[in-house]
Amino acid sequence: MSERTDFIRHIERLPEAVAAAANGLSDKQLDTPTGEGKWTIRQIIHHIADANINAYTRMKLIVTETKPILKPYDQDRWAALPDGKSEPLEATFGLLRGLHLRWSRFLNSLSESDWSREGIHLENGKVTLDDVLKTYSTHGERHTEQIVTFRKKMNW
Amino acid sequence: MSERTDFIRHIERLPEAVAAAANGLSDKQLDTPTGEGKWTIRQIIHHIADANINAYTRMKLIVTETKPILKPYDQDRWAALPDGKSEPLEATFGLLRGLHLRWSRFLNSLSESDWSREGIHLENGKVTLDDVLKTYSTHGERHTEQIVTFRKKMNW
Amino acid sequence: MSERTDFIRHIERLPEAVAAAANGLSDKQLDTPTGEGKWTIRQIIHHIADANINAYTRMKLIVTETKPILKPYDQDRWAALPDGKSEPLEATFGLLRGLHLRWSRFLNSLSESDWSREGIHLENGKVTLDDVLKTYSTHGERHTEQIVTFRKKMNW
Amino acid sequence: MSERTDFIRHIERLPEAVAAAANGLSDKQLDTPTGEGKWTIRQIIHHIADANINAYTRMKLIVTETKPILKPYDQDRWAALPDGKSEPLEATFGLLRGLHLRWSRFLNSLSESDWSREGIHLENGKVTLDDVLKTYSTHGERHTEQIVTFRKKMNW
Repeated sequence: MSERTDFIRHIERLPEAVAAAANGLSDKQLDTPTGEGKWTIRQIIHHIADANINAYTRMKLIVTETKPILKPYDQDRWAALPDGKSEPLEATFGLLRGLHLRWSRFLNSLSESDWSREGIHLENGKVTLDDVLKTYSTHGERHTEQIVTFRKKMNW
Repeated sequence: MSERTDFIRHIERLPEAVAAAANGLSDKQLDTPTGEGKWTIRQIIHHIADANINAYTRMKLIVTETKPILKPYDQDRWAALPDGKSEPLEATFGLLRGLHLRWSRFLNSLSESDWSREGIHLENGKVTLDDVLKTYSTHGERHTEQIVTFRKKMNW
Repeated sequence: MSERTDFIRHIERLPEAVAAAANGLSDKQLDTPTGEGKWTIRQIIHHIADANINAYTRMKLIVTETKPILKPYDQDRWAALPDGKSEPLEATFGLLRGLHLRWSRFLNSLSESDWSREGIHLENGKVTLDDVLKTYSTHGERHTEQIVTFRKKMNW
Repeated sequence: MSERTDFIRHIERLPEAVAAAANGLSDKQLDTPTGEGKWTIRQIIHHIADANINAYTRMKLIVTETKPILKPYDQDRWAALPDGKSEPLEATFGLLRGLHLRWSRFLNSLSESDWSREGIHLENGKVTLDDVLKTYSTHGERHTEQIVTFRKKMNW
């Protein structure tokens, strides 16, 4: 299995992996900061959806346009907005399941040449579709592990 | 009830309105073009999710940044991608329900001054948050009516 | 004479108008702030060149591309750079004479339909070629008058 | 002398180098294409000014803003506009002399840390100030050599 296939596989599995990582946590646990000045588990999970909405959009722009502008977003400010801070997780779980079904279908339909298509990220510069895939597949995994690690540390 | 509140109400209700409009349709019906060279009902519904993902993103950019760039997207090319063309509707229904829960929560939390904040849309120029709300609330309604009208015409 | 022709005429005449306005001033006079925390006459004149370089570029982008991004620039920071603050005026006079010859030639070659072409200014939103002409023709005139007025006030 | 100093030296000398390269040519010679479907010497010289106006602007944006967007321009369309195609060279010689005086002053004032500042070019991605210096210093030299080489070939 190639690295790329591996990244796509992780995107397919992410919604269940995140749901499993948060399974059984109380609202109080979900709203506990994971460190000094750090996000809560609830914020991390809502943030994963915000990140992946942006990733899905960027990847579609790259495939349907020539060197599109890819707009960064201010993740900390988004995570401080009410829906990113205190919305029940079910909203994001449903969003992620639907989004990742469509995203996976899209990713699995691409041709070899699509993967070297490029966008211009206004913070990072030129990125290929492969770069975006790697960034966001890894990003989702990393945050899932962050939740698992914090639960272990807290004995939850 | 102000016009703005009315638009937000429509956004809150959209996922169920779309699901109701498509209720009971067969795959064959969902895949019938709604006119010469026009999208199918399936494409319309997946397009609503694509549009609203972009709307949600634009509104958050406007609230968290100063005059952010708002990137247009090529709706026809997105609608021709495999996930926009032939994915089962359940993916998009789940996505819409979760997205609109978060989006509504966000919209209902905004202050009066937020609504005059602006972004720079690369096709339409300067738009306020109020403009984006109106555009996308109306957009979702219009497409829902389009589905209802087409069903009536086809006696489905 | 139409308003547009009048604006173009002012652009053609600007280099001599600016040179006349500053004629005979000593370095000390050129380096006197025109008010509390305001630019000196030298800075104003170098700023006119910076502004018009940007205007020339924007107008060419609008004519040669579809809805190009027009990038604002931070005029105060540019005016504080060494060449904008203390360069002899001759550099800018030569620059302006050459630039305005080419700019006028370009402006006089445009067809009626060119004047409604649009660009997307990242601060002001959508602007037509006519808008940019008006803005910069007026801008140069206003700064020239500002110099004349200040000389009168100072009895120079 | 460092590579950077060398690049700046070439920018300082460019206006005279270009004027020398074109010295004594008749209008007919200036308007002869330098190859099948290629620009004339007149177009090349006017293009150098267009390129350097863009370079000057980009370098000032990089120094006065954080990761500014650097807008590409369509050099072939600019070279086909009347002022780029048939304007007397004196306009561009005056423009270049003034522009390069200011540009050199600006370049010579920069600190070591300025040179690693970055902009986001919408075609090439991330570029440092050093990159832009190298690109445009080399660009001017290359076009000057192109004129010299063509004159030799034509025995002019």
